[in-house]
Amino acid sequence: MRTQRAPHELRPITITRNYTKYAEGSVLIAMGETIVLCNATVQKTVPRFLIGKDSGWVTAEYSMLPRATDVRNRRESQQGRPSGRTMEIQRLIGRSLRSIIDLHAMSGYTITIDCDVLQADGGTRCASVNGAFIALADAVDSMLAAGMIGESPLRSTVAAISVGIFNNWPLADLDYLEDSQAMVDMNVVATGKGEFVEIQGTGESRPFSRKDHDILLELALDGIGQISALQFEQLSAQIRQHLE
Amino acid sequence: MRTQRAPHELRPITITRNYTKYAEGSVLIAMGETIVLCNATVQKTVPRFLIGKDSGWVTAEYSMLPRATDVRNRRESQQGRPSGRTMEIQRLIGRSLRSIIDLHAMSGYTITIDCDVLQADGGTRCASVNGAFIALADAVDSMLAAGMIGESPLRSTVAAISVGIFNNWPLADLDYLEDSQAMVDMNVVATGKGEFVEIQGTGESRPFSRKDHDILLELALDGIGQISALQFEQLSAQIRQHLE
Amino acid sequence: MRTQRAPHELRPITITRNYTKYAEGSVLIAMGETIVLCNATVQKTVPRFLIGKDSGWVTAEYSMLPRATDVRNRRESQQGRPSGRTMEIQRLIGRSLRSIIDLHAMSGYTITIDCDVLQADGGTRCASVNGAFIALADAVDSMLAAGMIGESPLRSTVAAISVGIFNNWPLADLDYLEDSQAMVDMNVVATGKGEFVEIQGTGESRPFSRKDHDILLELALDGIGQISALQFEQLSAQIRQHLE
Amino acid sequence: MRTQRAPHELRPITITRNYTKYAEGSVLIAMGETIVLCNATVQKTVPRFLIGKDSGWVTAEYSMLPRATDVRNRRESQQGRPSGRTMEIQRLIGRSLRSIIDLHAMSGYTITIDCDVLQADGGTRCASVNGAFIALADAVDSMLAAGMIGESPLRSTVAAISVGIFNNWPLADLDYLEDSQAMVDMNVVATGKGEFVEIQGTGESRPFSRKDHDILLELALDGIGQISALQFEQLSAQIRQHLE
Amino acid sequence: MRTQRAPHELRPITITRNYTKYAEGSVLIAMGETIVLCNATVQKTVPRFLIGKDSGWVTAEYSMLPRATDVRNRRESQQGRPSGRTMEIQRLIGRSLRSIIDLHAMSGYTITIDCDVLQADGGTRCASVNGAFIALADAVDSMLAAGMIGESPLRSTVAAISVGIFNNWPLADLDYLEDSQAMVDMNVVATGKGEFVEIQGTGESRPFSRKDHDILLELALDGIGQISALQFEQLSAQIRQHLE
Amino acid sequence: MRTQRAPHELRPITITRNYTKYAEGSVLIAMGETIVLCNATVQKTVPRFLIGKDSGWVTAEYSMLPRATDVRNRRESQQGRPSGRTMEIQRLIGRSLRSIIDLHAMSGYTITIDCDVLQADGGTRCASVNGAFIALADAVDSMLAAGMIGESPLRSTVAAISVGIFNNWPLADLDYLEDSQAMVDMNVVATGKGEFVEIQGTGESRPFSRKDHDILLELALDGIGQISALQFEQLSAQIRQHLE
Repeated sequence: MRTQRAPHELRPITITRNYTKYAEGSVLIAMGETIVLCNATVQKTVPRFLIGKDSGWVTAEYSMLPRATDVRNRRESQQGRPSGRTMEIQRLIGRSLRSIIDLHAMSGYTITIDCDVLQADGGTRCASVNGAFIALADAVDSMLAAGMIGESPLRSTVAAISVGIFNNWPLADLDYLEDSQAMVDMNVVATGKGEFVEIQGTGESRPFSRKDHDILLELALDGIGQISALQFEQLSAQIRQHLE
Repeated sequence: MRTQRAPHELRPITITRNYTKYAEGSVLIAMGETIVLCNATVQKTVPRFLIGKDSGWVTAEYSMLPRATDVRNRRESQQGRPSGRTMEIQRLIGRSLRSIIDLHAMSGYTITIDCDVLQADGGTRCASVNGAFIALADAVDSMLAAGMIGESPLRSTVAAISVGIFNNWPLADLDYLEDSQAMVDMNVVATGKGEFVEIQGTGESRPFSRKDHDILLELALDGIGQISALQFEQLSAQIRQHLE
Repeated sequence: MRTQRAPHELRPITITRNYTKYAEGSVLIAMGETIVLCNATVQKTVPRFLIGKDSGWVTAEYSMLPRATDVRNRRESQQGRPSGRTMEIQRLIGRSLRSIIDLHAMSGYTITIDCDVLQADGGTRCASVNGAFIALADAVDSMLAAGMIGESPLRSTVAAISVGIFNNWPLADLDYLEDSQAMVDMNVVATGKGEFVEIQGTGESRPFSRKDHDILLELALDGIGQISALQFEQLSAQIRQHLE
Repeated sequence: MRTQRAPHELRPITITRNYTKYAEGSVLIAMGETIVLCNATVQKTVPRFLIGKDSGWVTAEYSMLPRATDVRNRRESQQGRPSGRTMEIQRLIGRSLRSIIDLHAMSGYTITIDCDVLQADGGTRCASVNGAFIALADAVDSMLAAGMIGESPLRSTVAAISVGIFNNWPLADLDYLEDSQAMVDMNVVATGKGEFVEIQGTGESRPFSRKDHDILLELALDGIGQISALQFEQLSAQIRQHLE
Repeated sequence: MRTQRAPHELRPITITRNYTKYAEGSVLIAMGETIVLCNATVQKTVPRFLIGKDSGWVTAEYSMLPRATDVRNRRESQQGRPSGRTMEIQRLIGRSLRSIIDLHAMSGYTITIDCDVLQADGGTRCASVNGAFIALADAVDSMLAAGMIGESPLRSTVAAISVGIFNNWPLADLDYLEDSQAMVDMNVVATGKGEFVEIQGTGESRPFSRKDHDILLELALDGIGQISALQFEQLSAQIRQHLE
Repeated sequence: MRTQRAPHELRPITITRNYTKYAEGSVLIAMGETIVLCNATVQKTVPRFLIGKDSGWVTAEYSMLPRATDVRNRRESQQGRPSGRTMEIQRLIGRSLRSIIDLHAMSGYTITIDCDVLQADGGTRCASVNGAFIALADAVDSMLAAGMIGESPLRSTVAAISVGIFNNWPLADLDYLEDSQAMVDMNVVATGKGEFVEIQGTGESRPFSRKDHDILLELALDGIGQISALQFEQLSAQIRQHLE
């Protein structure tokens, strides 16, 4: 049971940039005890379906280290394929990032964000989106510096938060214990201007009412506002100037 | 462009029960030109994580025939694994069905619903949920008839609909063309009482506002009301009597 | 035990063309309670080994829905690969179709026939060949209509039947129960002119004599004659005129 | 073109027993320049579907070394799975061996015959059946010697031959060149008493008539008679005495 | 070219224990700019081949994050299997750890060490061994604390180092650039008492003489001595007391 | 326990060239009861990473027949992938061969050596290297004869031997029993001039001292000298003349 945080209060967030030396963007993000390393890679290529379409691409991959959790999980390379959960999450991260970037303004390039969870304590997909956005911004800065693109293709910030109903109370930024006992669980992705990119709500143990839904959405937008502000602080002047 | 239906008007729905002869529930559902065969299988077993927990299980698998679509898709058995999209959809169907069934009231049994898309014209995951529920109900009736369970574990109906913003107009039950051009796309699953089970909204080509979101949610609930009524007509007396 | 059909009497055959709307040929064929959906896809490509050889290609894929049978089978996409039985059957269908088509007369094109078994009650491979041939003919008609080819490359009809020795009696078109108890089981594919394309005979529980073999072969040719006549009725004038 | 052998004349056959030291039966068989190593393994286990059924099992696996052929083939372990052709052949070998063995008389044991083609010059599946039978007989002798079984479960010999129509001439035991140019190709498996176990005939480049078929079948039985005699010479007294 | 370190001088080594909160041992080790996270998991199980043998087991898995290197590598879960290099390295780590632990003294337990390379700058397998040993020791301490075992099964420390000939000079602890240009490359694993556990020497671009070999071996033992001292400092009293 | 050979005495070696008829080099090598078939294939292609680099390539694949050993092993094609051991060995064989060949002198060509173990009695990787070298030399002769290359790219012979400490005695060329009980096990690959290409030493059941190591290395060089002499006898004049 959560005793030390108010419903809308987020866990402490720390953002470490340039965490590794090779990636064009490398961000270690901690939300409470959830820790994700987000590395951005810029490659001069586009996927097959975009060839000849004057567009770039942004995609994401997500994985958890085997002992990121309380019990060790088998490596997906041993199982021969990513799980359904992994694919669902990495597709979400990719869609979230693509929603705020003008792909035509980075034509010919693919940016891949690898989100590797070092420690999981709830909200790993949200932490991944939040860290991935900053890694993406750093990669954009590196492309600007290298003259690959003339101006920033980023049009907004994008952030994610989990909200849920736990013991009949709405709470934001659930940790693992809260999340695993939540009756309703919602992940919301929105831009810095408060527009929605993704809403994924699930009634885990019971359906939920329209009223529950509205309360959770408000809580989510409040949390995303807090995170967006932290993200904005990290942005360079040249990226800020192209935000709409 | 949609010219013949009002925004809230659904495509014609036809439900054919007992479509194949072996399955405990076998429903061919058509929503417009989207056609899905939903076969329910009852097995006296539960997955490993439920052994000894006095519970049953309901799960779903989803697949499209290679030429269900305009262009032929490679078979997933040739690729060696289901795609991320397939896994995401079948997880959604499973969660939707589990939300309205009391798993303890079918302890020791697993019901698997196979949703195979014969023809895809938008909204295949929603048609799958809608048909799968009736196949599930038929399987429950067969279990009652066989004395496997004493009373129906179903607590509500459950239905799904896609809604979206197409040419700046909100529309329900999008067909493939509408869906592929929608700027915002939302899949909503709800019970017959209008409580939400899943909300999955995505701003495909642009983020969307709270207002857009609220309009789409209303449209979705209206459509789900229509589908729920059709589903209810199909239910046996013994299932109806245990709905909450 | 078969009481209602004479040894040479086939189960009722129904052929539904244009069953789905996208495929260039789409045939739902029922032989008794065995039901197969055969969809033909035309693609402007040839496999690697035919590039530059002035030839087209015809191939087939075969699959059963998980609950096409009395007991649910695991999906092959979950197992990571088609089973040996699946591969054996789809190779047979492909060879059968190629035996009656002039591949040089459709140079540069591949026609893929997907045979998906919706309900299996014995003889699925034969029903697949029989339905696939009509789907192939419809695909050829669509190619003629589209001007892809100038004249039909089909040189004959091709049909398949299972025959077997059941309770020491030779029988044609075995259903599942008959087939599973047959001591000798033979699948025969032949053209409309009664020439053999494939003969696959197996002594399941005992070897069989030359005399048994000759009786079965006669029974098979009789049955194929009946099916060929049904197939011929479905053919367009322009296809009929190029049959040898 | 074949100049040195009459149509019914087989290529030279050599049989080397105890080729390797570990296997319970180890036979190197050469038919002309086709060379196959057949190793039999006896294990005290039966497959799941036979547990508790008072039966044994005989199965086969087939593979070609990468450079068994003129052009190097990729290893199937690199491709992640056996090809359709491989599975078809190993299923044929297994069925052939099971047709002449009384599985109840070896209850509780599985014999696996590995057929590995060291050099392929046509007829590898037939050479595999012919060698596998002797390896199986040697394994049976070892089981008798070890007291695992009281008497031989073998009821007949079993042999295989390919026949075909090459340049409009029927020929037996085709080598690779003959086989690849054959218009009709038939593999026949029969017991030492001349009863059929498997007949697999394919009109590769053209359908074939009943008359062609009958000629090929005669040729096949003649060849199988020759091979059966060679096999019989290799059998121990205790196996011979239980042949029917 | 290495200008700032003497041949026998190692890159700076930092060891951070308890890096993550769940694992029974969690060590982040940096050797220069190579950074590896080593997490130890204790499970009450042994692999099948040890059941009933009064033994425990120690094993390791190794992986690199996709962007641990200058160029992004494809995830092994996407490729469906670990590469040959990955398997070779994780087998080496496992053997190294098993060489200094008395498996009978931890009967019934498996310790798995996951070595995940966050940043790779040469010598990742050596850093993995060095960090894995300390994670193993921490896991042993946790087992002692939990009363799973009565005394430490560790009999020695174990450490690893790479040595090579670069520009005709022998060097220890090569970074990526040095390693990629080394003419001879040797990985040596040895105990704290200077006894060898593994020697893997490869003449990458040219064979090497006995004299080269002896010089490299001396250099390796010197480096391992330095690392062993660092490791020893980290050990608890109860582990130290059982070192031989 | 070894009673009939002195520590430095090798098991009898027999080399059969042109064992199969298709391969450009085909060598059956027996070292004692270990028997490996080494087939060399020449292809006019290079791997992707060498395109445009004026180089050729030499690589190896290794496999064991399922019953090459006392107990039958599952086929790797059934498991979907080569084991870690297989990959480790084939990488070793490839590196060994590449160490003594000038890849630039065979630019544009790849030689693949398939080493398939027919019978395994210890030292299979060493027998593979020893036989593979001769198959490689035969392939080089065939390339010279075909005018693909103007002169031999081989610069030395290369041979391998296993040595170990068994019952506290150093022994060369261990058979399976000796190897499985060896406390220390070393595989050494060296050129005909006695220069090392690979040294892989492992303390299986206990670490080993520098002195043990030196004794084993001497024993290995002695054995490699014996094998190199046998290999040299097999070489053509045109290959001998380019050895350094």
